[in-house]
Amino acid sequence: MLAQFSIVPLDKGVSLGKDVAKVLQIIDNSGLPYKLNSMGTVVEGTWDEVIGLIGKCHEETVKSSDRVLTTISIDDRKGMKNRIDGKIESLEKRLNKSLRK
Amino acid sequence: MLAQFSIVPLDKGVSLGKDVAKVLQIIDNSGLPYKLNSMGTVVEGTWDEVIGLIGKCHEETVKSSDRVLTTISIDDRKGMKNRIDGKIESLEKRLNKSLRK
Amino acid sequence: MLAQFSIVPLDKGVSLGKDVAKVLQIIDNSGLPYKLNSMGTVVEGTWDEVIGLIGKCHEETVKSSDRVLTTISIDDRKGMKNRIDGKIESLEKRLNKSLRK
Amino acid sequence: MLAQFSIVPLDKGVSLGKDVAKVLQIIDNSGLPYKLNSMGTVVEGTWDEVIGLIGKCHEETVKSSDRVLTTISIDDRKGMKNRIDGKIESLEKRLNKSLRK
Repeated sequence: MLAQFSIVPLDKGVSLGKDVAKVLQIIDNSGLPYKLNSMGTVVEGTWDEVIGLIGKCHEETVKSSDRVLTTISIDDRKGMKNRIDGKIESLEKRLNKSLRK
Repeated sequence: MLAQFSIVPLDKGVSLGKDVAKVLQIIDNSGLPYKLNSMGTVVEGTWDEVIGLIGKCHEETVKSSDRVLTTISIDDRKGMKNRIDGKIESLEKRLNKSLRK
Repeated sequence: MLAQFSIVPLDKGVSLGKDVAKVLQIIDNSGLPYKLNSMGTVVEGTWDEVIGLIGKCHEETVKSSDRVLTTISIDDRKGMKNRIDGKIESLEKRLNKSLRK
Repeated sequence: MLAQFSIVPLDKGVSLGKDVAKVLQIIDNSGLPYKLNSMGTVVEGTWDEVIGLIGKCHEETVKSSDRVLTTISIDDRKGMKNRIDGKIESLEKRLNKSLRK
C-alpha cells in the first residue's frame, strides 16, 4: 500500500524544520521506499511496515511536544507494486508528456 | 488520543452504506468510545487501541474490494482524557451557547 | 455537498479554544447547516457557499497567525440533500440500532 | 500558500488514470507552480488562485461522476515564497544529505 503522512507538533511555533528532520531521519533509516514532497512523505509497504514506521515517527515527535497532529492517507490497491513511481509514470504515458514532480 | 477515520472502497459505486455498516459494527463492538459524524468516525484511545481498530476495519473492507482509500487524522494531546466530548463542551462554555453537534 | 474542515494555527501553542471559538462564531452566523465534532466541523451547501465560508474562516485565522494549516474533505454526491443528518440515519436504519453520534 | 489536493470519483472502479489525466491537464494549463506525487498534487499560489484551480478540477470530475471525494490540505505561511521547492531544500541542508523526492 501507499501511505502519505505528515506529523505536526503544535507547540514549536511556525518553523518545524528541526522536528521534520528528526522524522525524516527515521524514515530514511527504515529501508522502506519513500518520497518526500512539500506537504508530507509517501511510503510504500504492507500495513504493518507502513503503520509501524508512522507510529515510530509519531512517538518520536510526541517525546518533545505536548500536542501532535498526525495525518495519514492510505491507498491500498490489490496486486500492485512499486506504485510510488508507477502511478506517475502511467499518467505521463497516458498524457504523452512529462509532468512536474 | 483522538482519531477520525474514513474507509472508502473504490469498486462499489456511489452507495457505500453496506460497507460502512460492516465497519460501524466492528467499531461498535470494539468497546472504544466513538462518535459517528457524516464524514467519518472519531474514536478515542491509545495508539495501539485506535490504530488496531482502524486496521481491523481497513482489513475487513479490503476483503471485498480491490482498492480501498483510508484516511486517518490523529490529535494526540498529553494528559487529556475524554476529549471526544470535552473539546466541544469547552467550546460551548467559551462561547456561552449551545452549538449544533 | 458536504465538507468537513479544520483550521489550525501553528503559533498559538497547544490550546486552540480561543481561535476555534472565533471560527465557530463565523460558521454559526453563516446560516449554513453545520455540525461540530471533536475533529472538525461539517457544513452542507454548494461549492461557493461551503468554500466561501471556509475561506472566511481561514482568513480570520490568518489575521492573527503566521502559519495556518487548513484541511478540507469534500463529499459531493449528485441529487442528494440534507446528507448532514441523512447519512447517519440511513446507517442506523440499515443496522437497525442507534449509533453514538 | 501551498495546497495538496486529490479528487476521487466513486463510480469509475479502481482505475482512475483517465480521470486523473483530465485533471492534470487542467493543472498543467493553469500556469501555477505544481508538483505531482503518487498521492496527489501540490500547487502554490494565493487562496483565489489555488482554490479556483481546485474548483475547476472538481467541477470537471463531477461532470462525469455521480459522487466525487475531494481532499485539500493547505499550508499558509506568511511571507514565504517558492515553498514548493524550498521546504525540501531547507530540510536537505539541515540533514546535510540528499533525500528521495
